[in-house]
Amino acid sequence: MMTNDDFFDPEDTIGFLIWDANRAMNREFSDRIAQHGVTLGLWPFLRALWEGDGLTQRELSEKVRMKGPTTVAALNKLEDKGFVRRQGNKNDARKINVFLTPEGRKVYRKVIPEVEAVNVECLANLSPSEQAAFKDMIRRVRNSVTGV
Amino acid sequence: MMTNDDFFDPEDTIGFLIWDANRAMNREFSDRIAQHGVTLGLWPFLRALWEGDGLTQRELSEKVRMKGPTTVAALNKLEDKGFVRRQGNKNDARKINVFLTPEGRKVYRKVIPEVEAVNVECLANLSPSEQAAFKDMIRRVRNSVTGV
Repeated sequence: MMTNDDFFDPEDTIGFLIWDANRAMNREFSDRIAQHGVTLGLWPFLRALWEGDGLTQRELSEKVRMKGPTTVAALNKLEDKGFVRRQGNKNDARKINVFLTPEGRKVYRKVIPEVEAVNVECLANLSPSEQAAFKDMIRRVRNSVTGV
Repeated sequence: MMTNDDFFDPEDTIGFLIWDANRAMNREFSDRIAQHGVTLGLWPFLRALWEGDGLTQRELSEKVRMKGPTTVAALNKLEDKGFVRRQGNKNDARKINVFLTPEGRKVYRKVIPEVEAVNVECLANLSPSEQAAFKDMIRRVRNSVTGV
């Protein structure tokens, strides 16, 4: 393992470059969605509910790959904003299902164009063949880290 | 702008893929550095001080591109852990310089091999020429988002 500080530049690692690109994107996306009353931390839950309305809290946690307490905190905020409602499961009293409200569906539709706009910005300097190659490679990077 | 939900898959966007790869890396890196008493949020500050020991709090904020209160909170934690010390500037009473302690330098040296190990994991599924192409492309993605 290389440990010579003269030759190892942390800012030239793929890890740093992914982290730095992600930070830039997050900032841009946060700025864009603030006007719709959504934060970066809430968006994955809105998206997961759009795709699977009525999921239980546990299923939601798994789908967004967040811990239980993180999910509960996010759902509390989304409920306060009127974007989701919780409903006890009729067949299993231990389960709580979560649904998007009409307001929540409306805000999802407002955020999607912002997702697309950030995506357009990301792609601006890549040719179509580079875009395809980049997506393929970053999937392989993720999979090698997660051991998939 | 494309808004047809039938054709737009958010999980296929470069934005999502970067975010998801970053999350996988963060989890792996967090798990590895916990044993050294460092968290993901503290690491950028240790790294910045290693490169610029004695920076002022404001200079540090700019270098890591975090907001002032975030920097102050991180420095408080690093001071509690004995990794940094603050010292009032002799020439300008408004300035506070921050220095790594010997313990802070020691922990930096312990974390660097973890950075390298995560990097090795990231690169495992990319050939050398793909690695170079990927780094070049992700820099262009970041720059197009930040408008550089």
